[in-house]
Amino acid sequence: MSTRAIQTAVVGVGGYAGMELARLLLHHPQLNGAPPVFAGRGTSAAEASGGAPGSAVPLSTIHPRLMDNNGSAGLLVEPFSWKLFKSRGVEVLFLATPHEQSREWVPEALARGIRVIDLSGAWRLNESANRAVYKFEDEGKQSTDAVQAKSVYGMPELHRDDIRGAELIANPGCYATSIILALKPLVAKGWVDLQRGIVCDSKSGVSGAGKAPTAKTHFMYAADNLSAYGVFGHRHTGELLEQLELQPEQIVFTPHLLPIPRGILSTIYVWFKEAMDADRIKSCFDNFYAASPMVRVFSAGNLPQIQYSAYTNFCDIGFQLAKDGKRCVLVSCLDNLLKGAAGQAVQNLNLMYGWNEAEGLV
Amino acid sequence: MSTRAIQTAVVGVGGYAGMELARLLLHHPQLNGAPPVFAGRGTSAAEASGGAPGSAVPLSTIHPRLMDNNGSAGLLVEPFSWKLFKSRGVEVLFLATPHEQSREWVPEALARGIRVIDLSGAWRLNESANRAVYKFEDEGKQSTDAVQAKSVYGMPELHRDDIRGAELIANPGCYATSIILALKPLVAKGWVDLQRGIVCDSKSGVSGAGKAPTAKTHFMYAADNLSAYGVFGHRHTGELLEQLELQPEQIVFTPHLLPIPRGILSTIYVWFKEAMDADRIKSCFDNFYAASPMVRVFSAGNLPQIQYSAYTNFCDIGFQLAKDGKRCVLVSCLDNLLKGAAGQAVQNLNLMYGWNEAEGLV
Amino acid sequence: MSTRAIQTAVVGVGGYAGMELARLLLHHPQLNGAPPVFAGRGTSAAEASGGAPGSAVPLSTIHPRLMDNNGSAGLLVEPFSWKLFKSRGVEVLFLATPHEQSREWVPEALARGIRVIDLSGAWRLNESANRAVYKFEDEGKQSTDAVQAKSVYGMPELHRDDIRGAELIANPGCYATSIILALKPLVAKGWVDLQRGIVCDSKSGVSGAGKAPTAKTHFMYAADNLSAYGVFGHRHTGELLEQLELQPEQIVFTPHLLPIPRGILSTIYVWFKEAMDADRIKSCFDNFYAASPMVRVFSAGNLPQIQYSAYTNFCDIGFQLAKDGKRCVLVSCLDNLLKGAAGQAVQNLNLMYGWNEAEGLV
Amino acid sequence: MSTRAIQTAVVGVGGYAGMELARLLLHHPQLNGAPPVFAGRGTSAAEASGGAPGSAVPLSTIHPRLMDNNGSAGLLVEPFSWKLFKSRGVEVLFLATPHEQSREWVPEALARGIRVIDLSGAWRLNESANRAVYKFEDEGKQSTDAVQAKSVYGMPELHRDDIRGAELIANPGCYATSIILALKPLVAKGWVDLQRGIVCDSKSGVSGAGKAPTAKTHFMYAADNLSAYGVFGHRHTGELLEQLELQPEQIVFTPHLLPIPRGILSTIYVWFKEAMDADRIKSCFDNFYAASPMVRVFSAGNLPQIQYSAYTNFCDIGFQLAKDGKRCVLVSCLDNLLKGAAGQAVQNLNLMYGWNEAEGLV
Repeated sequence: MSTRAIQTAVVGVGGYAGMELARLLLHHPQLNGAPPVFAGRGTSAAEASGGAPGSAVPLSTIHPRLMDNNGSAGLLVEPFSWKLFKSRGVEVLFLATPHEQSREWVPEALARGIRVIDLSGAWRLNESANRAVYKFEDEGKQSTDAVQAKSVYGMPELHRDDIRGAELIANPGCYATSIILALKPLVAKGWVDLQRGIVCDSKSGVSGAGKAPTAKTHFMYAADNLSAYGVFGHRHTGELLEQLELQPEQIVFTPHLLPIPRGILSTIYVWFKEAMDADRIKSCFDNFYAASPMVRVFSAGNLPQIQYSAYTNFCDIGFQLAKDGKRCVLVSCLDNLLKGAAGQAVQNLNLMYGWNEAEGLV
Repeated sequence: MSTRAIQTAVVGVGGYAGMELARLLLHHPQLNGAPPVFAGRGTSAAEASGGAPGSAVPLSTIHPRLMDNNGSAGLLVEPFSWKLFKSRGVEVLFLATPHEQSREWVPEALARGIRVIDLSGAWRLNESANRAVYKFEDEGKQSTDAVQAKSVYGMPELHRDDIRGAELIANPGCYATSIILALKPLVAKGWVDLQRGIVCDSKSGVSGAGKAPTAKTHFMYAADNLSAYGVFGHRHTGELLEQLELQPEQIVFTPHLLPIPRGILSTIYVWFKEAMDADRIKSCFDNFYAASPMVRVFSAGNLPQIQYSAYTNFCDIGFQLAKDGKRCVLVSCLDNLLKGAAGQAVQNLNLMYGWNEAEGLV
Repeated sequence: MSTRAIQTAVVGVGGYAGMELARLLLHHPQLNGAPPVFAGRGTSAAEASGGAPGSAVPLSTIHPRLMDNNGSAGLLVEPFSWKLFKSRGVEVLFLATPHEQSREWVPEALARGIRVIDLSGAWRLNESANRAVYKFEDEGKQSTDAVQAKSVYGMPELHRDDIRGAELIANPGCYATSIILALKPLVAKGWVDLQRGIVCDSKSGVSGAGKAPTAKTHFMYAADNLSAYGVFGHRHTGELLEQLELQPEQIVFTPHLLPIPRGILSTIYVWFKEAMDADRIKSCFDNFYAASPMVRVFSAGNLPQIQYSAYTNFCDIGFQLAKDGKRCVLVSCLDNLLKGAAGQAVQNLNLMYGWNEAEGLV
Repeated sequence: MSTRAIQTAVVGVGGYAGMELARLLLHHPQLNGAPPVFAGRGTSAAEASGGAPGSAVPLSTIHPRLMDNNGSAGLLVEPFSWKLFKSRGVEVLFLATPHEQSREWVPEALARGIRVIDLSGAWRLNESANRAVYKFEDEGKQSTDAVQAKSVYGMPELHRDDIRGAELIANPGCYATSIILALKPLVAKGWVDLQRGIVCDSKSGVSGAGKAPTAKTHFMYAADNLSAYGVFGHRHTGELLEQLELQPEQIVFTPHLLPIPRGILSTIYVWFKEAMDADRIKSCFDNFYAASPMVRVFSAGNLPQIQYSAYTNFCDIGFQLAKDGKRCVLVSCLDNLLKGAAGQAVQNLNLMYGWNEAEGLV
């Protein structure tokens, strides 16, 4: 079959999302026989793992848990170079890199005819006002705008058709995925009283904060603790505004750092314009996600928990309606490294190559 | 000094709040020389610890961490009996018991001239509508109403004067303490737009769920997880309504179970009627808590975390105001077993006997 | 292909090992199209999940994380009955049940021509002295001995050939697996000084303690804690003695309860009879496990950690040798629910039906 | 009373042990009215907290949990300088600093007539062979040897009398404290068969690894994990050898990193020369620690757990003897930041000034 011919590459494989990408792609039924090309973030692959610059490092040295896994023993993580990708015939590139690097490398990749699935925030936002928080150096350039125009927000449940033919996928933010999937069906119906505002109180495991050792990723900071951060200023806010078509004053989003390795739970508070009943809400979700294998809608009053979707690619959505029919609490859960990052990226890959959307994900 | 003459007793010492009460009272400077009388919840002290009924059990068997602590080696937990309390001259009784038991025992204690600090929800609510969730069997009786009329809601920062002379203290709920202390100063000023509603998203460590082994207190349920529960129906809601003088539709309160032993963080969302500035809010808090040693007000934009107040009796309050001056996120933290239970109970004891409010607590 | 014809069943699917069995078998490439029959532990399937007795319960109600996973939406957990298994043509039965139930059900299953993979300790031990700790009621019966004689200790790395043709697999204990795999190659060589004794200090996540809510599985007991238990009396000790051919006084085994959901790390201390070098030890392990895809041998001085093998079916083995060449520390890690239970059970299934030993496991 | 005149200082207050020292000294009954002088590790106090160099920083900025605690609001952490200590009349100096700094500063302090309690490993070891692992630059100098000769190993249970008059206290290592206290009574009796060797398998919470953010203190490294480290090479080994008077080949010590904030549990395996009974062992411990308020000896077969002694200054010791009377498992627990560091340091302070040994510690 021709599927064997598709050569993927993962840049930034040393991080947590990179590790999950490696694991998923190494076991992907449609990629069997063609392991991804793995590259580090810098010109040296070894930088991510503290090794000497300039040379390749075994994948199992960087991620011992991937050792001998499905024949990965001999796999190497190599220094980033376009020459490497060309020599291996890379057709599609996953970037699990900081947004500055994605900003720099995506135009080059597209120019070389390589399709890109970018896991950073570099190409997710259409409005320059929303991008301001990233302080991109190339903001306002015509060539940049041309790349942004090609970018498809890689949330299959909302943009399935556009994803199929995309050259560039901007893989959504983890928080944004959990919130948008919970709100979109209701907001699209026009049921939510936007004048009263929507509150999104999200909680994420520590892997969301990245692999760099910092004061805030220290075990002693995170363990036995909970802390809010990025109040009124988190970068994922722009994704909420654009995908849900909201004004800034209509939503408040507060992320928190949970003392667990992985998983996000978003508790979302909406007021309906008029009194609703639970069946109507449930039907709305069921219809909206009827063709979406990676969203699980819970019955009314039955709320998802982080551990139901951890280590899966599902986004779980539940809700509870007050007796007045107007106040509603939505709860949305996903694994920030899978549906919130690497899993959703592979879901996008599946769509891009015409495979089953859930292939290699369940 | 006459302070030695005050004999306390703790009923329900086998639970988590009971253990903290024991620890605090055994080290309390004003009680030196008179250890509390410790009693179990049932007619048998041993019930709490799985021992044989009817006989006393060493405190250190039930709580090994209290062993030899300040001379506790010889201390016993005895079966509950009024005779016991009378023979020891108990003057003030701490009830760390289920609300059904507190409901039964408080009238008897008051009749015997014993002052009571009740840690359960039995006597916190003045409105019968708010009490409905407890399904008290004695609801509506005249004698019950008479006891309720004597009950003082034991939040020193709001009811300091009433506490001093109280016969019966209804020690506040842990969630309620964290939310009321954060909201009261602002709501009392009339600044909050109640028409838009207040959202209280609270997260608590597992000790708040009690010592009974259940499916939901199993390590495998709570660890690496987060779950919402009691949505639109948690028992502490009535305390919020009464102490903040709100209508039910003006507030939504969602508790969550955090994978940590102790600590509560409440993230509270308010909209102000008119645009505010941070200094005005900070001053409001500073003034309100000027005479309250157990509340720590953080500077604007500097948010408390659970671990700052864990293992202390402080309630920490911080806030962040949006640029529009209208949307405001409040964060409130406390240790659910201390300021949320045993610590606040001792704070009330201090007021009842004219001691320094923070005595034995820092 | 004839593989579709193999009908499996899982009894005790409500527990943790049962859940992992369900997950593995639902995704097993060789079982595609024939989901297992799922049964509860009692005559009522619902017992495990607190439902009403006597009727079937959706698998996703008992294990929400398995919802819609690979078409499991319509799957039910049914009350245990031989009639059920017969009507569905069950050929091989996984028992994830307490040892008393396995003791009762295995003879019946064999009599009915059903092959059994028993995850309990019921049939692991050949010596009656070693079985004494289980206090089996049928001990000493001739019919029982006949069943025991058929039992094969289901550790593929040691008994691969016997497993292939077995009617009854006694799936090894989780602690025993981690210790035996680390020690067997060295003990078999006769290098270890048994006169000095072997020390096995093992630590396990809480899932090993089972799903029943008890004082010891309470979050507050396990979290932020570590405790030793079962010293000189743990049931897995007999497996160590029999599989390693040791005398009781030659080994000390102490299990500990770790504050994590899953994973075992065993630190094992041996003294060699004569000074060794690291290469010789490494070669010994490499040779012993050359044909074993589920054991990963680490290079000298490079020790495995729990998180490398958690959520996998690998057993990771590493060692560090003292400069004197005589004192050696072995470290062995595995996931107690996978290589220590459900994963090893599926590994045995693979051997029993002539499939690739690692099929459906990586 | 003259106790008010004693001025303490804490250097390195920004770390975890420093924070506990600050907390303990601020509440110490004998120091009431004279808060310690707090200094950073470098010439700039701010270095520990990321602030600007050269200026003082509020203690509550570095440790928010100490905010307003017992009047600490106005307390500052100042740059390290001898001038500072002189101007404040510092009489006793706590060094919670890396061993290199302690090595440099202790001689100067002693020369200035300041008594020192050093929490590092700089002055704990008498034998140069044991010190080799530290690679001290001043090793072999006569002046260094003179300082070492003055150093008293600050374990009150073993060296109470020497501590009282000491100029320099080398506060013991956390692992070493847990192991030495468990073994000393038995080894001193000559009961232990040293020819068979002693195995010490220790597990510590992450605070023992220090506050610097590193790959190994990252939450994602430690959480849901367990790992052995420093096998055959941990720095505390020399303390075991010297205090227990053992030869290197008679003991194996393996530390592990536990996924908890604080606490150490050491599981220690000994073989007795002849069969013992449990009463004899229990009496041995009871007698040895009869005058030691900070050691709690458990009854035979009743083993301590980490959470019993966490947040206390106790070292808990228990044991279980095999039926053969020869194999014995000892379990020893303590809080690595208290009895393993700051608490033991204050215990030493108490002895140095003739106060009750447990003053300010329970």
